[in-house]
Amino acid sequence: MRVGVLTGGGDCPGLNAVIRGIVRKGVQEYGFDFTGFRDGWRGPLEGDTVRLDIPAVRGILPRGGTILGSSRTNPLKTEGGVDRVKRNLAENEVDALVVIGGEDTLGVAAELSAHHGVPCVGVPKTIDNDLSATDYTFGFDTAVNIATEAIDRLHTTAESHMRVLVVEVMGRHAGWIALHSGLAGGANVILIPEQRFDLDQVCAWVESRFKIRYAPIVVVAEGAMPLDGDLVLKDGTLDSFGHVRLSGIGEWLAKQIEKRTGKEARTTVLGHVQRGGTPSAFDRWLATRFGLHAIEAVRDGDFGTMVALRGTDIVRVPIGDATARIKTVDPALYQEAGVFFG
Amino acid sequence: MRVGVLTGGGDCPGLNAVIRGIVRKGVQEYGFDFTGFRDGWRGPLEGDTVRLDIPAVRGILPRGGTILGSSRTNPLKTEGGVDRVKRNLAENEVDALVVIGGEDTLGVAAELSAHHGVPCVGVPKTIDNDLSATDYTFGFDTAVNIATEAIDRLHTTAESHMRVLVVEVMGRHAGWIALHSGLAGGANVILIPEQRFDLDQVCAWVESRFKIRYAPIVVVAEGAMPLDGDLVLKDGTLDSFGHVRLSGIGEWLAKQIEKRTGKEARTTVLGHVQRGGTPSAFDRWLATRFGLHAIEAVRDGDFGTMVALRGTDIVRVPIGDATARIKTVDPALYQEAGVFFG
Amino acid sequence: MRVGVLTGGGDCPGLNAVIRGIVRKGVQEYGFDFTGFRDGWRGPLEGDTVRLDIPAVRGILPRGGTILGSSRTNPLKTEGGVDRVKRNLAENEVDALVVIGGEDTLGVAAELSAHHGVPCVGVPKTIDNDLSATDYTFGFDTAVNIATEAIDRLHTTAESHMRVLVVEVMGRHAGWIALHSGLAGGANVILIPEQRFDLDQVCAWVESRFKIRYAPIVVVAEGAMPLDGDLVLKDGTLDSFGHVRLSGIGEWLAKQIEKRTGKEARTTVLGHVQRGGTPSAFDRWLATRFGLHAIEAVRDGDFGTMVALRGTDIVRVPIGDATARIKTVDPALYQEAGVFFG
Amino acid sequence: MRVGVLTGGGDCPGLNAVIRGIVRKGVQEYGFDFTGFRDGWRGPLEGDTVRLDIPAVRGILPRGGTILGSSRTNPLKTEGGVDRVKRNLAENEVDALVVIGGEDTLGVAAELSAHHGVPCVGVPKTIDNDLSATDYTFGFDTAVNIATEAIDRLHTTAESHMRVLVVEVMGRHAGWIALHSGLAGGANVILIPEQRFDLDQVCAWVESRFKIRYAPIVVVAEGAMPLDGDLVLKDGTLDSFGHVRLSGIGEWLAKQIEKRTGKEARTTVLGHVQRGGTPSAFDRWLATRFGLHAIEAVRDGDFGTMVALRGTDIVRVPIGDATARIKTVDPALYQEAGVFFG
Repeated sequence: MRVGVLTGGGDCPGLNAVIRGIVRKGVQEYGFDFTGFRDGWRGPLEGDTVRLDIPAVRGILPRGGTILGSSRTNPLKTEGGVDRVKRNLAENEVDALVVIGGEDTLGVAAELSAHHGVPCVGVPKTIDNDLSATDYTFGFDTAVNIATEAIDRLHTTAESHMRVLVVEVMGRHAGWIALHSGLAGGANVILIPEQRFDLDQVCAWVESRFKIRYAPIVVVAEGAMPLDGDLVLKDGTLDSFGHVRLSGIGEWLAKQIEKRTGKEARTTVLGHVQRGGTPSAFDRWLATRFGLHAIEAVRDGDFGTMVALRGTDIVRVPIGDATARIKTVDPALYQEAGVFFG
Repeated sequence: MRVGVLTGGGDCPGLNAVIRGIVRKGVQEYGFDFTGFRDGWRGPLEGDTVRLDIPAVRGILPRGGTILGSSRTNPLKTEGGVDRVKRNLAENEVDALVVIGGEDTLGVAAELSAHHGVPCVGVPKTIDNDLSATDYTFGFDTAVNIATEAIDRLHTTAESHMRVLVVEVMGRHAGWIALHSGLAGGANVILIPEQRFDLDQVCAWVESRFKIRYAPIVVVAEGAMPLDGDLVLKDGTLDSFGHVRLSGIGEWLAKQIEKRTGKEARTTVLGHVQRGGTPSAFDRWLATRFGLHAIEAVRDGDFGTMVALRGTDIVRVPIGDATARIKTVDPALYQEAGVFFG
Repeated sequence: MRVGVLTGGGDCPGLNAVIRGIVRKGVQEYGFDFTGFRDGWRGPLEGDTVRLDIPAVRGILPRGGTILGSSRTNPLKTEGGVDRVKRNLAENEVDALVVIGGEDTLGVAAELSAHHGVPCVGVPKTIDNDLSATDYTFGFDTAVNIATEAIDRLHTTAESHMRVLVVEVMGRHAGWIALHSGLAGGANVILIPEQRFDLDQVCAWVESRFKIRYAPIVVVAEGAMPLDGDLVLKDGTLDSFGHVRLSGIGEWLAKQIEKRTGKEARTTVLGHVQRGGTPSAFDRWLATRFGLHAIEAVRDGDFGTMVALRGTDIVRVPIGDATARIKTVDPALYQEAGVFFG
Repeated sequence: MRVGVLTGGGDCPGLNAVIRGIVRKGVQEYGFDFTGFRDGWRGPLEGDTVRLDIPAVRGILPRGGTILGSSRTNPLKTEGGVDRVKRNLAENEVDALVVIGGEDTLGVAAELSAHHGVPCVGVPKTIDNDLSATDYTFGFDTAVNIATEAIDRLHTTAESHMRVLVVEVMGRHAGWIALHSGLAGGANVILIPEQRFDLDQVCAWVESRFKIRYAPIVVVAEGAMPLDGDLVLKDGTLDSFGHVRLSGIGEWLAKQIEKRTGKEARTTVLGHVQRGGTPSAFDRWLATRFGLHAIEAVRDGDFGTMVALRGTDIVRVPIGDATARIKTVDPALYQEAGVFFG
């Protein structure tokens, strides 16, 4: 049996650990052969393959990124895309595909598996942790650790100068990274996309912190937005979906806080630092186990399914479950964190 | 209402985060007062208290250890201990206790809560992650990260000199730290207390690794034991329970491997480095939430219970559940990791 | 003898280590008493003091920031400032001052020591490493390590998506942090304030990197500027010295590269993360030794001097030497690094 | 011109950075070709070579170990060794050698360069920092950082349980790692090979620490020895030089302290963790510059020399200077640190 593997969408620490787990178990326990496809769905679409065997996966466990490359290519949106994928799989004698990716990448796998006779097993991937079918996705823990370390560092410098420090973290539609790193880092304000924030309230928290001679740390997800729509219209720009957005929310927020409170404010934008580099131990463990269980699903012929974490168990769920709806932060959970604000 | 707090047993990164969560929520949301007891059950036994209010918990979130101190004192094993505890709680006008600890410390809380009218809420703590009632305990993730980083560092030096490197990690009765860090670090052999190891098999794995020009890393839990009882009898010593044990299993194993394979072997003993210092983001998150939910249980008058992690939820379970049986590594899970051995 | 201590200017990891070194040696070996002054020169100016003894310096060695607080207050620019400082020192019975700070803070110490009978010993401090009298200043090594770790993380994500990643690091007038972290991190382009950059050259380096299927990392000091003055005039703003500057050079550069090369570019702005948190081992060592040697200079009555690092030795130089001229990156050193560009 | 490169002796973080610096500059600026020799002097002795060009050095900058492998093979102690080296160099058309290594490896280079017409340039390497000709060697800063982080972690756990924690660090003949990490980590006792320690004094320091309710951290270099020769004779073993040594000084010391003070003591043995893994930013900078300057020396035909760090400059010195005498810790420097003992 020959199994194809591809990684799509934004990269996450742990992708290589998944690939290694798949290949080690597939070769050693099941005697499978493997073909790597380059750059997500572009690989099968264009027949761009790469050797994938035991030597190819040596030493990749601790490395960020993906040895297979990634892209956002979508064969469903490409004329004749499905047929080209099927033809290239046939030409490479690939019997099944393991597809590692987020909503879009897995959506293609669900469609091809259900309606086009392409046997796929999915592995969920999103740094934002916003897939509803799994407790956690790999990469998220690494991102939270990196953001938390940054917040740790900011505390001392904030207090030496009694300045507001704003940290912009990832999270366009879900505030998991902001919530977890803000809580773990002891932030004084956490702002998430799920709940529009009141600038007056933010400034009140900032000022109450100064009153006890401590300097505030504000963690803001990149997709957070103020309540006041006029502010957004004034400073925002249209994104590719036609929504008005504030790009550079961290910088924008620092300026608003300076203007309203008269306190100096500085910004840190962590950007891609959060998604690069070596995965945390938790992410390596989760990603490795995802890989081992995905290839087990292939062996079982259990196609159209995806591996997922439930408690400490790896289970299988229909791929569609992952892409049905985004997992956002529960208002009750956000409120629980509120005891630390201000 | 006045609530007492104590931390018992070995320390874990995250203890201070629990204490902070309890006090912040207790004071700000419920208007409770707090009394800290020093050094686990020694505090209530001897009436040794410490101020515990909002200023006392400022800045402790990222700090390892416990501001309350710890000990293994057991009032149930002290003559008149229960009465002394009750008298000291009454004298300090303490209405309820939050008890943060492992099997022994929580066992006292279960007994006092059930049969002596001392209202207790428990928070589970064990760096070894061997409590059956909760998916994870805080401190474990930090320990696994530290051990994984050590293994990462050993890979390059092992290969430069083609030496066997043995890493001894914590885990007297359960191999969770060895299993997780070994898997995350890409170890070539993982030995756990749950399954006696065959020295010949270990040496075979070591040699197969050298054959492909890689140097092996062996991760061994401190409580791991060889199959061959004669070896243990020869080199072991009696522990305090009357069991024959190999103290310094890492060093012992390195010598055995050298003798049998003729390859140089070196040992790293991480020791208390694994349980000290700043907690990982995951442990801070878990510990903080344990604290918030423990004080909520106190507010609800839900005594005799303990907080626990189930998936991503914090739930309450009877304290006795934590202490009923130790959670050891499932043989299936250990076998799953076996694909990476050798 | 009673010695005053103050820390001025921007904070640096290591300030607390200096303070601890001064106090431990001063009390234990020389029997001195100490008075801490709050917030740099504001302390002596307003008579704002804080207790400074052995218990006050316990546990501060690994902590960033400064327990004394900091400010940019300048008594020479305050009406009657010098007299107020002298009066407050007299009222607190302070016989000598140890002044820890950068160009401005030390400039005041030089003036007060030389012309106003205030016996001062200086300790140089600048995260940018741009003081000419000393090989290194503490805090710099920490900042370089943090920036290097960020660059390490960016490599894998850059290559997974074939994107340009721009990292903006500190350095308004000197490019030491950019040069050291860029070299240590394997950056493909390093831009420093000392040498205006040619955008076409930058884009050529970026494109040559893509040609070999690697993604470029560009490290840019916040004070770097393009050769093309028109670009600066178009997008720049006036700073407080009346110079036209590009604020947000990282973001600006990413946009220019995108426009000119057609490649996606993303930005990371590390900001105050570089100056906060625990100092590296080197910085703790240097800062501690600076403290020990500064108090030795006080004991020797060697006022008007400043401690400095020369090779592995701590020496004394006139305070004025530190402030005479800024130490910028030697063109030959920058050119040496050029072999790694592109 | 074709240049050979080899790395000998124990590995150090930074070896790969040196190799990369040599090759990048040699190829790009001077048009040299390169031949890598495997496993130190074994490579030229047995004609065991490896391809060494620009692609071979991509991505190795942050990686510990050495892509060339290492050994302690000495052609001067091998019958006909010198002739075999010369013949293999000739057969591979190698015109000059860059030799990266410590005392032994460089000693061979000095001899071959001076008396056998083999043109060598040396790069000094020792994790222990004990070469007299250079301010620092790469790898040392990394080791000190790792040991310091371990000490940081031990502080909190020591204090939670009021235990003595002993950390054994590298340093067989010189105490630089112990001294620097002990000072940077705030250790309460530092023991180095240069000065025999008095067990009674050590125990007095330990007890004085407990008296102020703090728990002591003892840092001990692996080569440290007690004053009392009888103790050594009783527990020691003969090393390969015929000297009686205490192997496992950390464990031995913990037991002695327990016996004499009645306090619990625990040991951490960092071992090879100190020499593996990614180099610190300082070590990457130093190693890279050593590489660039070594190949410049080759270009200049300046054979028999070695690069060295003096302040912030890289200079050239006769290779013999490195091997003339070991650089041990100056008693005055050790005494300076003594203010923090106890």
